[in-house]
Amino acid sequence: MKQRLLILFTIVAVAFSMNAQFNSSPVIGKDGSVSFSIKAPDADTVRLVIDSRLDTLMQRQGDKWALTLRDLEPDLYMYFYVVDGMKVLDVDNAHVLRDVKSVMNTFVLDPNGDCPMAVHDVPHGEVRAVWYDSPTLGMKRRMMVYLPAGYEQSRQRYPVFYLLHGSGGDETVWLEQGRAAQVMDNLIAAGKAEPMIVIMPNGNVDEQAASNMSALGNVQPTFAHKHWMDGLFEQSFNDIKTWVDKNFRTRDAKRYRAIAGLSMGGYHSLYISANQPEDFNYVGLFSPAINRMDKGKCTIYDDLETKLVTQFKQRPRVYWLGIGEKDFLYKDNAAFRELLNKNHLRYNYHESGAGHEWANWRDYLVIFTQLLFK
Amino acid sequence: MKQRLLILFTIVAVAFSMNAQFNSSPVIGKDGSVSFSIKAPDADTVRLVIDSRLDTLMQRQGDKWALTLRDLEPDLYMYFYVVDGMKVLDVDNAHVLRDVKSVMNTFVLDPNGDCPMAVHDVPHGEVRAVWYDSPTLGMKRRMMVYLPAGYEQSRQRYPVFYLLHGSGGDETVWLEQGRAAQVMDNLIAAGKAEPMIVIMPNGNVDEQAASNMSALGNVQPTFAHKHWMDGLFEQSFNDIKTWVDKNFRTRDAKRYRAIAGLSMGGYHSLYISANQPEDFNYVGLFSPAINRMDKGKCTIYDDLETKLVTQFKQRPRVYWLGIGEKDFLYKDNAAFRELLNKNHLRYNYHESGAGHEWANWRDYLVIFTQLLFK
Repeated sequence: MKQRLLILFTIVAVAFSMNAQFNSSPVIGKDGSVSFSIKAPDADTVRLVIDSRLDTLMQRQGDKWALTLRDLEPDLYMYFYVVDGMKVLDVDNAHVLRDVKSVMNTFVLDPNGDCPMAVHDVPHGEVRAVWYDSPTLGMKRRMMVYLPAGYEQSRQRYPVFYLLHGSGGDETVWLEQGRAAQVMDNLIAAGKAEPMIVIMPNGNVDEQAASNMSALGNVQPTFAHKHWMDGLFEQSFNDIKTWVDKNFRTRDAKRYRAIAGLSMGGYHSLYISANQPEDFNYVGLFSPAINRMDKGKCTIYDDLETKLVTQFKQRPRVYWLGIGEKDFLYKDNAAFRELLNKNHLRYNYHESGAGHEWANWRDYLVIFTQLLFK
Repeated sequence: MKQRLLILFTIVAVAFSMNAQFNSSPVIGKDGSVSFSIKAPDADTVRLVIDSRLDTLMQRQGDKWALTLRDLEPDLYMYFYVVDGMKVLDVDNAHVLRDVKSVMNTFVLDPNGDCPMAVHDVPHGEVRAVWYDSPTLGMKRRMMVYLPAGYEQSRQRYPVFYLLHGSGGDETVWLEQGRAAQVMDNLIAAGKAEPMIVIMPNGNVDEQAASNMSALGNVQPTFAHKHWMDGLFEQSFNDIKTWVDKNFRTRDAKRYRAIAGLSMGGYHSLYISANQPEDFNYVGLFSPAINRMDKGKCTIYDDLETKLVTQFKQRPRVYWLGIGEKDFLYKDNAAFRELLNKNHLRYNYHESGAGHEWANWRDYLVIFTQLLFK
């Protein structure tokens, strides 16, 4: 312990006296190339794993293992190394994000300065962590709120976009992996999206908040909730809506209200909007987890076809469905499209590459947001 | 890559169908014991490192290595494992925090439900990430703001506490490692602290924001800034103060204004308050980095003794100095206390165990906050 303290003091003291420079990793070239490198002199194999996009062996270069990738799309990336079978984070990259329970390094690739997920020198909105009261669930709950640049200085009212996370996520994930604040800042600044309020609630009704922000103590993020796709979130949704309309300068009308979500959140968006057809003019289903619910538990899930027909009679301006061709939910979504088609209900359909993953959901957010409130 | 995709889909699909349960780590007993465990069947040695508090060998138990600790103080802890010399994070704990550039696992130990760093079922304030304009620095900059519970619903004005980070930190660290929002929520709810606004700016004047929230791209957190303790932050401070008084319902008077900071932030607090004696009734220097500045660069740093005498003639209500007995800045702080003593300037002095570290700074925050605005 003494040795460790001494080392710590030495590091701090050196930093104070020399302004020590750290390495930056990965190294991103002006051409958009991304170079990874890890020191592991005794390793037999080192792999680089990027999201679900890449899992490849690295090449030994003396004490280090290295790999340079070219032609990656501008986006946010998450990665880790596997050294002789053991997952290892990049010690030269302090930027990490969590995906459900897995912590990974992250970087944003923006070689041309136009990636909507990157921070740019544009007017920035505010991000707030607020607690609201849910009488239905009998608890105070946390949600994240994006307010567009200028909100505080204006007297204007704004449209509201409810943006819901998937199973294993919480109120923070659309801001973290989803880069929702950067996407909104950039699209609004470019005139591609209308200034809007974005509400990111927690869709796990057993939770007050993300696991490290809850009064429940040392709890881990999990897929396993007592109440899970059983209708209770949908039933409690109006607690959120009521609180939002009371506490922000919203335009409280269907014309100015959107709802979208990924996976479980897409499923939530589907049923909330079908049960409240008078409330949402814009609905976005991002790889929705159709047919995964706890059936028969709740009237929320009854008579979907009838409810959809009623909803579409009220002509939602945009009903948007996106899914990756490799998504394990693809078939269930195809069946849902058949249901819509059979009833001649008009929707936008976007099919992308890849599977059930954030690379798709960030793209869907960029696409869907540009359709709103116009 | 195909194999990895298949594994991912399988995990997600299993989670969807079975609500898979994850392990939680560390395991915290009702008696406050904390049990750590890591699977490393082929390792020769495994160490557990907790902050700068502990660095110890773990005991092999079959495929795993384990250790149970008792009698730890209620607090936030940061830890990692060292497997055969390589730093490894705890894969069963998704909660991580960054200390400058080092990512570690974290947990909050709150066996009796009274740790001020834990989230409790009390009214919660709001946390905002906002961008302000700094004409002095010629850029938009990000700061974090804590607003006490009830702020939005009241018309009241509130006192303001400026809370500054250390070298290597940024606007987020007082909320992350410092648990400032939880400390404020808990102290205010218990009637131990007055409701107040807490402003946490970024003290690195080369930065717009924390490195992953800046338009500068793939930059890492660092001690190494072009401008570092050269007076420019102190000179630009009133850009923050002006913006805050304009944008929040503050009590804009010395009586209702406090400033404190850790390490470099303590140094900033010392010089900002000495140069603006009419502005701060409460000054907190937490392990201040005295005598580490870039001397002679700026008149901000001239004639400190004279400035302090002038400041104390205006009788600040609280001038508080805290340091750990093992802090590498201890001697410089002792010399500073000599300067105060020689001039008969009255201050509160708190000497704690340990060194230049967060365990002290969280404690100092709890102590200092209870002295404010009374």
